Amino acid sequence: MPVTIDYSGKIVFITGGGRGIGLAITTAFARAGATVIITYTSQDPSEVVEKLSEEHKVPIHIYHCPGEDTNRVNEVIDLSSKQVGEVDIVIPNAGVSLWRDCIDMSDSELDWIMKTNLYAPITLCRGFVRHWLGMTTEVKTNSYPGKPSSSADQKVNLNKRILCVSSISGIVNMAPQKQVAYNVSKAGLTMACKSLSGEWAKYGITINSISPGYVSTDMIKNPPPGEGSSWPIKWKQDTPVDRFAESSEIGQMVVLMCSNEASTFMTGHDLVIDGGFTTY
Amino acid sequence: MPVTIDYSGKIVFITGGGRGIGLAITTAFARAGATVIITYTSQDPSEVVEKLSEEHKVPIHIYHCPGEDTNRVNEVIDLSSKQVGEVDIVIPNAGVSLWRDCIDMSDSELDWIMKTNLYAPITLCRGFVRHWLGMTTEVKTNSYPGKPSSSADQKVNLNKRILCVSSISGIVNMAPQKQVAYNVSKAGLTMACKSLSGEWAKYGITINSISPGYVSTDMIKNPPPGEGSSWPIKWKQDTPVDRFAESSEIGQMVVLMCSNEASTFMTGHDLVIDGGFTTY
Amino acid sequence: MPVTIDYSGKIVFITGGGRGIGLAITTAFARAGATVIITYTSQDPSEVVEKLSEEHKVPIHIYHCPGEDTNRVNEVIDLSSKQVGEVDIVIPNAGVSLWRDCIDMSDSELDWIMKTNLYAPITLCRGFVRHWLGMTTEVKTNSYPGKPSSSADQKVNLNKRILCVSSISGIVNMAPQKQVAYNVSKAGLTMACKSLSGEWAKYGITINSISPGYVSTDMIKNPPPGEGSSWPIKWKQDTPVDRFAESSEIGQMVVLMCSNEASTFMTGHDLVIDGGFTTY
Amino acid sequence: MPVTIDYSGKIVFITGGGRGIGLAITTAFARAGATVIITYTSQDPSEVVEKLSEEHKVPIHIYHCPGEDTNRVNEVIDLSSKQVGEVDIVIPNAGVSLWRDCIDMSDSELDWIMKTNLYAPITLCRGFVRHWLGMTTEVKTNSYPGKPSSSADQKVNLNKRILCVSSISGIVNMAPQKQVAYNVSKAGLTMACKSLSGEWAKYGITINSISPGYVSTDMIKNPPPGEGSSWPIKWKQDTPVDRFAESSEIGQMVVLMCSNEASTFMTGHDLVIDGGFTTY
Repeated sequence: MPVTIDYSGKIVFITGGGRGIGLAITTAFARAGATVIITYTSQDPSEVVEKLSEEHKVPIHIYHCPGEDTNRVNEVIDLSSKQVGEVDIVIPNAGVSLWRDCIDMSDSELDWIMKTNLYAPITLCRGFVRHWLGMTTEVKTNSYPGKPSSSADQKVNLNKRILCVSSISGIVNMAPQKQVAYNVSKAGLTMACKSLSGEWAKYGITINSISPGYVSTDMIKNPPPGEGSSWPIKWKQDTPVDRFAESSEIGQMVVLMCSNEASTFMTGHDLVIDGGFTTY
Repeated sequence: MPVTIDYSGKIVFITGGGRGIGLAITTAFARAGATVIITYTSQDPSEVVEKLSEEHKVPIHIYHCPGEDTNRVNEVIDLSSKQVGEVDIVIPNAGVSLWRDCIDMSDSELDWIMKTNLYAPITLCRGFVRHWLGMTTEVKTNSYPGKPSSSADQKVNLNKRILCVSSISGIVNMAPQKQVAYNVSKAGLTMACKSLSGEWAKYGITINSISPGYVSTDMIKNPPPGEGSSWPIKWKQDTPVDRFAESSEIGQMVVLMCSNEASTFMTGHDLVIDGGFTTY
Repeated sequence: MPVTIDYSGKIVFITGGGRGIGLAITTAFARAGATVIITYTSQDPSEVVEKLSEEHKVPIHIYHCPGEDTNRVNEVIDLSSKQVGEVDIVIPNAGVSLWRDCIDMSDSELDWIMKTNLYAPITLCRGFVRHWLGMTTEVKTNSYPGKPSSSADQKVNLNKRILCVSSISGIVNMAPQKQVAYNVSKAGLTMACKSLSGEWAKYGITINSISPGYVSTDMIKNPPPGEGSSWPIKWKQDTPVDRFAESSEIGQMVVLMCSNEASTFMTGHDLVIDGGFTTY
Repeated sequence: MPVTIDYSGKIVFITGGGRGIGLAITTAFARAGATVIITYTSQDPSEVVEKLSEEHKVPIHIYHCPGEDTNRVNEVIDLSSKQVGEVDIVIPNAGVSLWRDCIDMSDSELDWIMKTNLYAPITLCRGFVRHWLGMTTEVKTNSYPGKPSSSADQKVNLNKRILCVSSISGIVNMAPQKQVAYNVSKAGLTMACKSLSGEWAKYGITINSISPGYVSTDMIKNPPPGEGSSWPIKWKQDTPVDRFAESSEIGQMVVLMCSNEASTFMTGHDLVIDGGFTTY
């Protein structure tokens, strides 16, 4: 008798769920019957999402929500919870990359990468956990001395899952491109999940990260011209399985990892899916 | 539409599959429709296995096979392949533990732990890969200069999966018990999987390890008397989720990881399921 | 014949070199004969530094320089190089900490920790490397497409060393305090050193990090009142050597690691000095 | 005033100290004034050692001692302690390597690598710690239930240092050569040091490992003919600093790390000196 993984009735929140790896994750959850909420920043994914929704007969909701705009993030958490329902699973996925030598990297470039790839997932998760605990999503700036509300001190079983899309760039230095800001943001994100797994265990929340190696996205298929044109050859050489991942492989794995079949005993782990890249 | 994970027609080989975590893995695979081959060393698991087989209506085959007896291991690989069919998935799981201060550990104790926990999985995998490649399972001692047969040099897609049961003891030093031999054997096993992922990528074989934290087995429930009686309290304190794993949680995760839904892009990874233990 | 480690004629730049671990590093370099340049943000360390300078008969120069003020950082790099001489060794050491549950952490608190502990070391190093390469310290915002000057593309041997003071909080989640922002900033800093070791190898620059465990500083001696008062007991319990480090032990190690006796083959490494904390 | 590192009056024990990296370590200690005891297995290093001894005016003692022969190891521990004096620092350095595809590796080849590279350092350290604690070096096989003598239970400050020569092969899978046995033995050795740092902290013993990347030894200079002839090119490409280490660089670092200037707060650490190899 086959094992079934059924997300009907479950609500999944995915930032940047309208393109790249995020779209693959949205697709995999839709296929498994979940109701999906996705956010976007620049490009409205309504068209592709409508098709997905029809194909898999699940509702997919779209919100415009730049991850570094905390007010809007908190608003979308509250709004979508009312309009769609209480979210079960959060997938902070949106990220940006920058190929730049450190000595040429401006302060604003560094800040842009860090805010989008690192601050945004942390503040999103903070907002959701506060919401789940019955607190306001907004942190009052006069929060010092920083004591949680009494409800937050209690041990509760919210039974929620968070899975952040990080990268093996948080573990090793990818080459030949130069991308110190990206690497740093992803190392920070992986550590954030480790740290928060400890803080939030008492709330019945697991939080893990997933770190893909090179995935066959548009960016990989179209590296910058000039010296960049030879990069994919090097990337493939450094990947023992001798190919890039399909984004669907990442999406499916996320769906497995967030399912009821997966152990809630797994928390604070960084799931590396890289074709063996980091073993060398 | 739920995702289904169906192992009908698939054959899984699990060492030590008749008890502890191994039995949980056998159970999870049986539940998912697989044909299972298990080995045992000291205690014949026929009784428990028969029930499992009936309950899930799948064949489960049992072989007596001490992991450190290479001749017998090779024989069982050949024999079971003939009697049951070609194995798709290999789960080197059997292991032994020893709580002993290093200064009191005898040479034979160290050797026993290493042979069982580290040599045995390596030689088992070696035997299966040779078998799959059409070579004799036995390595001729005059193999020097160690060139693979010409078939082995070719890139082939055998589409096989190996998942070794390692331990977080290979990452951190568990306490308050003393167990240097066990820790070393598991660090070695995790590294073996990393190394072999690179060697065997060209054969279409993925090889990963799974490292559970404290699992609620008999050993955990019954630590040694005296100072050992207080260990479980410390173990639980050091586990952020504030409980031990159920062995079924490990079993289910293994089934997810070896399924067709799981990415074949994951190889050389150590999947840590420890309730957050190693994040501290 | 004893090995001698002599820093006479060498110039060392240490951020936050006037207190805590930074002062211990300043002291160790002064003792070894180095000329030292230190920066401070809030508290002018002239008094303590003057004594040090007299005791060891080496010049110690002090600049006011908040690490997150890039303009001032670049100015101090240029200024001190003129006023004192070309710096040989850079020790980004200044950092701040925050004990705060994630759900109570405001955006500005997160930003403050990240800017001080992570952005500042990166921009400081960027400034020095640009200066050493004969470029302006300032990155023009229209630097895109981000090509280094032709001099920077060349392989040169500047023979410089950078050692960042990171923390084991970048590896594991310290407890029982909550400090996700601090942990994330240090994981990022350690990764920055790894990444930059690759970028700057061709310039003859090594860059490593040092990650102390609990050091007997004022902060450790005076944890927050209330629940914090019991923290040091837990911290010591979790440290196998059963004590905290003296800050002088960290200072001396930094001096060894940056010396001519230490291998310039060590780069991208995170030197952990933690009394065994992270082995558990 | 320069810092001086003076080993006069100190006794250092180095296995395999007569060649390769071991000889570089012997040389560095001799240069720093230490009395050195070295062991060898196959090739008597008397000639080279005599010169060293004369040059640096320190006694260097040589014992024939195959590391896997526990009886002889224990004998040499007792004998050298009597003939030379109580050893302060132990450097388990001897090791062997094997380039062999796993599928072609015989049981005896695996056993040879593991016994020499992993069992031998463990049993050597066990013997020394027993000796230092006033116990017989030999572990009685009827040691069960494995309780240390009462003296061993006490907290004592022996003030001893152990530094094992491991390898980055214990962290990542080196390529293009195949060497699973070597990798596994080194991962085990690094873990052994981590584990024993916890066990032996109460005795005032620090135990760390050092993991060099590619070092310019005879083996590196003379890879096997055929496909091996191109390996050094790949090895250098994968090393960011674009060269191999000189063995003297490893030797000097060992001398720094074991000195009184180095923190006794460092224990259980794996000191990686690899030109940035593992950062990628």
